[in-house]
Amino acid sequence: MEISSSALRLPFLFLLVPLLLFFLLSPWNPLHNLSGGGDSAGRRTQFPPKSLTSISPPPAEPLSPPPRNHNSATARNPLDPLTVGEIHRVRSILSSYQPFLHHFPSIQSMSLDEPDKSRVLGWKSGDPIPSRKAFVIALLDNQSHLLTIDLDSGRVETHEISSGSGYPMLTMEDVVAAVQTAVSYPELEASAAARGLSVANLSCISPSPGWFGPDEEGKRILKVLCFSKQGTPNFYMRPLEGLVMTVDVDRREVVQFSDTGKGIPIPGRANTDYRFRPGNKPPEMERINPISMEQPRGPSFTVTDGHLVKWANWEFHLKPDQRAGLVVSRVVVRDSETGAARSVMYKGFPSELFVPYMDADEGWYFKSYMDAGEFGLGATAMPLVPLNDCPRNAYYMDGIFVSADGQPFVQSNMICLFERYAGDAAWRHSELTVSSGGQELREARAKVTLVARMAASVGNYDYTFDWEFQTDGLIKITVSLSGMLMVKGTVHDNMNQVQNQDEMGPLVSENAIGVVHDHFITFHLDMDVDGPNNTFVKVNLVKEENVEGKTPRKSYLKPKRHVAKTEDDARIKLSLYDPSEFHVVNPSRMSRLGNPSGYKVVPGGNAASLLDHSDPPQLRSAFTNNQIWVTPYNRSELWAGGLLVYQSHGDDTLDVWSQRNRAIEDRDVVLWYTLGFHHVPCQEDFPVMPTVAASFQLKPVNFFERNPILTARPVFEEDLPVCRPSESASII
Amino acid sequence: MEISSSALRLPFLFLLVPLLLFFLLSPWNPLHNLSGGGDSAGRRTQFPPKSLTSISPPPAEPLSPPPRNHNSATARNPLDPLTVGEIHRVRSILSSYQPFLHHFPSIQSMSLDEPDKSRVLGWKSGDPIPSRKAFVIALLDNQSHLLTIDLDSGRVETHEISSGSGYPMLTMEDVVAAVQTAVSYPELEASAAARGLSVANLSCISPSPGWFGPDEEGKRILKVLCFSKQGTPNFYMRPLEGLVMTVDVDRREVVQFSDTGKGIPIPGRANTDYRFRPGNKPPEMERINPISMEQPRGPSFTVTDGHLVKWANWEFHLKPDQRAGLVVSRVVVRDSETGAARSVMYKGFPSELFVPYMDADEGWYFKSYMDAGEFGLGATAMPLVPLNDCPRNAYYMDGIFVSADGQPFVQSNMICLFERYAGDAAWRHSELTVSSGGQELREARAKVTLVARMAASVGNYDYTFDWEFQTDGLIKITVSLSGMLMVKGTVHDNMNQVQNQDEMGPLVSENAIGVVHDHFITFHLDMDVDGPNNTFVKVNLVKEENVEGKTPRKSYLKPKRHVAKTEDDARIKLSLYDPSEFHVVNPSRMSRLGNPSGYKVVPGGNAASLLDHSDPPQLRSAFTNNQIWVTPYNRSELWAGGLLVYQSHGDDTLDVWSQRNRAIEDRDVVLWYTLGFHHVPCQEDFPVMPTVAASFQLKPVNFFERNPILTARPVFEEDLPVCRPSESASII
Repeated sequence: MEISSSALRLPFLFLLVPLLLFFLLSPWNPLHNLSGGGDSAGRRTQFPPKSLTSISPPPAEPLSPPPRNHNSATARNPLDPLTVGEIHRVRSILSSYQPFLHHFPSIQSMSLDEPDKSRVLGWKSGDPIPSRKAFVIALLDNQSHLLTIDLDSGRVETHEISSGSGYPMLTMEDVVAAVQTAVSYPELEASAAARGLSVANLSCISPSPGWFGPDEEGKRILKVLCFSKQGTPNFYMRPLEGLVMTVDVDRREVVQFSDTGKGIPIPGRANTDYRFRPGNKPPEMERINPISMEQPRGPSFTVTDGHLVKWANWEFHLKPDQRAGLVVSRVVVRDSETGAARSVMYKGFPSELFVPYMDADEGWYFKSYMDAGEFGLGATAMPLVPLNDCPRNAYYMDGIFVSADGQPFVQSNMICLFERYAGDAAWRHSELTVSSGGQELREARAKVTLVARMAASVGNYDYTFDWEFQTDGLIKITVSLSGMLMVKGTVHDNMNQVQNQDEMGPLVSENAIGVVHDHFITFHLDMDVDGPNNTFVKVNLVKEENVEGKTPRKSYLKPKRHVAKTEDDARIKLSLYDPSEFHVVNPSRMSRLGNPSGYKVVPGGNAASLLDHSDPPQLRSAFTNNQIWVTPYNRSELWAGGLLVYQSHGDDTLDVWSQRNRAIEDRDVVLWYTLGFHHVPCQEDFPVMPTVAASFQLKPVNFFERNPILTARPVFEEDLPVCRPSESASII
Repeated sequence: MEISSSALRLPFLFLLVPLLLFFLLSPWNPLHNLSGGGDSAGRRTQFPPKSLTSISPPPAEPLSPPPRNHNSATARNPLDPLTVGEIHRVRSILSSYQPFLHHFPSIQSMSLDEPDKSRVLGWKSGDPIPSRKAFVIALLDNQSHLLTIDLDSGRVETHEISSGSGYPMLTMEDVVAAVQTAVSYPELEASAAARGLSVANLSCISPSPGWFGPDEEGKRILKVLCFSKQGTPNFYMRPLEGLVMTVDVDRREVVQFSDTGKGIPIPGRANTDYRFRPGNKPPEMERINPISMEQPRGPSFTVTDGHLVKWANWEFHLKPDQRAGLVVSRVVVRDSETGAARSVMYKGFPSELFVPYMDADEGWYFKSYMDAGEFGLGATAMPLVPLNDCPRNAYYMDGIFVSADGQPFVQSNMICLFERYAGDAAWRHSELTVSSGGQELREARAKVTLVARMAASVGNYDYTFDWEFQTDGLIKITVSLSGMLMVKGTVHDNMNQVQNQDEMGPLVSENAIGVVHDHFITFHLDMDVDGPNNTFVKVNLVKEENVEGKTPRKSYLKPKRHVAKTEDDARIKLSLYDPSEFHVVNPSRMSRLGNPSGYKVVPGGNAASLLDHSDPPQLRSAFTNNQIWVTPYNRSELWAGGLLVYQSHGDDTLDVWSQRNRAIEDRDVVLWYTLGFHHVPCQEDFPVMPTVAASFQLKPVNFFERNPILTARPVFEEDLPVCRPSESASII
């Protein structure tokens, strides 16, 4: 078997890895590991991508400071992620740590152990930063070791072996091992041959198995599925349906091999390739003249010390995270009247991403991914494509992550930051008037926002996360989905061959069913509105009906405020016919009118998980049982599905924590919001999906004394750039 | 009383008019009426607005044809609105029409009587256009006359006197008459004096009264409310609370005068002025460098014959309408494979806008506006502000409307059309791969869309309507709210003075309560997916639970298709926990895979009306009882609240029509979608509201054989413009 020519990847919450390249190029190759004094940061990815080599560097006036030399970078802020040097130091400390002397464990995760919140809040620019610590999850002999390491003293401060269910996030090595094990399994050749292929024609991926009871406990397993890569880079569209290999990752053993689909054809490769080639036939449409967001004086934001973003009235700390992807911290907005910096949120990030598929078959039932905790949203965030993923005026930020051997690597250009003007108005009003002496009133203000973006390609699916900051104090969080469907092979190539079409599911191409699935993204939003102690208030709109005699009206709505005393009061299922607003207020900070300063979470389009609460995937992702939860701040409650999600039994979820029904009034609280999508695929989703987006907002409510952008200046023609077409411009 | 210095306007579904200017400048001034051969189109509004006089004309390469001379324009398309010449002709025909010889009626509405749908569909560019007809609603002696006039023959073809409830849309003259009547009423002086004012200090507006039983039947009435305009153009923030005058518009008589609020202070003027003045103190934030959407080669769309828009793969007819605002017709998209033009929608427009306020007091209970049918969304759409309402690359379109004397006037720059690039990706996928010989796959495509926009300033509130067309076949319809709150005076200036805060409602400024209210916008969407005969299919996601023994899963979702046979099957209340997709399919047009060609309506964030179904406002706006309805196409069912909405009793609504439960399967059907907002005001909404938006989508579902933009070209650096800052650029 020719492994070197097999395609092994890292996909959909299950990763596929190029084996050959892996050993030649990857940071896990010992030859390429960064040495402390080396001159290379061991970039995992080449950039710019070869297909877009003509791309020149972005902004006209680059931001200062320019991209840093990662090897010499030092932390300047208590929340800065571990630096290359610090990662080396942790590895060195662990190497000489007694329990690991004889066998260095697999480093499943290594990240900054953030100082206590009070320490961070007390810190000011210029202060020495609190002692740096790392939090490491290591795997040794099937046990999960949780360690905190003090970088100053060089000591392991705490060391605990997990006794709960669940394993740490997978590493790329785990994935490679599973796929290698599977493709070496002798029976695979017969399965390939039965479909007219050899193993060398296959791309195999390694989805996580979920957890479905005792059979698969006590060992780390991965499911391995294979696809034909013949004639297309988009193997996802060409499954070997019915073939499932269950692999014990640590023992490198196929523990179950099942192939029930030898009679099911592999869907064809026609029209599956999504790559741009200069000779491609363009779509049937008139060409679009070049259009661009232009800012010839450069961006108006600054990024200080690599992570501190300042723009307009906002300031926040922005960092890449191997698990959460993109973390914003210490989000502060300037008061529109006084200019004072006021806290909005201590920390916000996507805590978990749950993707259950809706098919009970053997090759499908287990697909109930928890991408953040199983594979890592940052770990799967590849470099963004300039001019296409982000506009020309974007600034890019790298992630410094850690591989299984404890060595650092660079996830380059994984975050972009840009100002957006989309042609909309921030506010407006028009009328005819005599009050102004005959002058007409036509007031409008152009809306300019700041967007921080990353895109995780968790295998087939691409999730783009946007944090958009508006000058009126609103923060909009958007998740956009694109990438590939997971398709299921079928003997049918036309719906007319099927009696009960509902039984089969939607045909998206010949012999390919787009399996129905959901996506749920649960955000951890540690709101600190004017300080840590906040109260959650549900403002319920209630119909008043007993109004006879008092008014010709028979009904009207009245907002009724309900202060949440304990966690029970703050578990919210949204309802169109029982509407509420959801405020996080600071009961100690009143506006001049006596309204508590607050922010509200404003849901947009959403979807709820309808799975049975006792169904294992729902049990493990019980954090989706409500759209909103509020918990008291607890340093250890970061991950809605639990710290160790992989194969977990649901014993460490947000739902479990919340059942304690702790007091939450006038406390430091965390708001959790879940954004959901139901996805019934259709032909337009083949072979790559046009982007679908959903969002929610955090919006000031009596936080400012009045409209904070009332006195903003309109745009005048003389403000705008003078542009001419590029000499070489072709038409888009 | 000095009428000439009173502010009389046209606001919130109740209009306020500058009386002095009115007679000097307006198109209703007989001196300024357009004559057929005149050289002026009688622009109602001056443009550009004086405060932005330095604005220069928009696109680098102006679209052809340039803005037309409205006086000489002729209709080129069966759907083109009435031209200036045609309006003159209708007036002339009516002037010599026997029943109107002695008394020319008030023209409440005059618009194109569109040819039968089959005639329009049969028409092709170059064909002679079908005979032009006008539909006129005239008011004479308290009766509503409905007339169709054939412009070719010069004859009144049909003439009917309405026997149902309700009056036609108000005219500006009606509003002026009501306000004039009210401000001349002697008792008003005492009310003003009790508050330390004279009548000359007041701005009075004329909200519609709704309908609350027999007391106010048999006559056209308006409510008149007054505000202090002292020291601010934003009189809305300064109500004379408790003062309500009920005016019989036709008899010019105050039929009821009530002032219960003499003890309630008028809220102050501080911080209410929203106008830009060069010396304004800017908000407390860092300045933003100039940013602009640039298209140095000009827009890529064309507007032919004034109304036919072609862009990328889209073609549609776009026209201003005095009642609906903006109408898109014959929306056609090019097939991504064959290039064939395929129908998506025959006609789409906002059919009604319902705004109930939630206060039972005498001065408030009646506020339950139906803005489209009472005041007209086009009639209240003022010129858009270049660079602030719409970007620099926008193209503007005028409306040609009709005043009460039957004369045309120009509503200039009321629609803008522009291409948008907001920095987002239309689709993307990234992964490491060996399938391509070691080359990494990073594919993304920049998303460029086309936006058609208008903004109705219905008094205090500003409603921006966007129709956004994407190259992937999706149409996104967005309604954005800005403008002013309606505030209620109160003796309180701090919430701490109030025992039961829920009883009072939110204080948004000293002595000013922001009254809770809703907005519902119901869209008429005459879908013609690949032809007129379509079927509505609800694809319900149902939880399957009886799966024991078959799979380790306990539940999963299965889509079940329900074909709507009659109207009963298509009345939809959205539910998070009983989710469905809503498809409009053509059962006769199958994809190559046997999926019916379709479009689905995709709800976004939404709100439902919770008023009692027997409450008069809800009875009249019963079209909001569901979020989705489907009716068989009926030429006369255009306006969800009825043709004659003003003071109507709810006897001609979508709800009434739908109760007939007509067959809708495989028929020409109309889809109705209602977008809603609950608005609980807060201090940030004072004195002008930051924009709030909600949207829904019409999205292809198995309409295309595959992703229609798979082969789109990415953007390369050399495609983009070369820009430098303007010499005179200041910082925004």
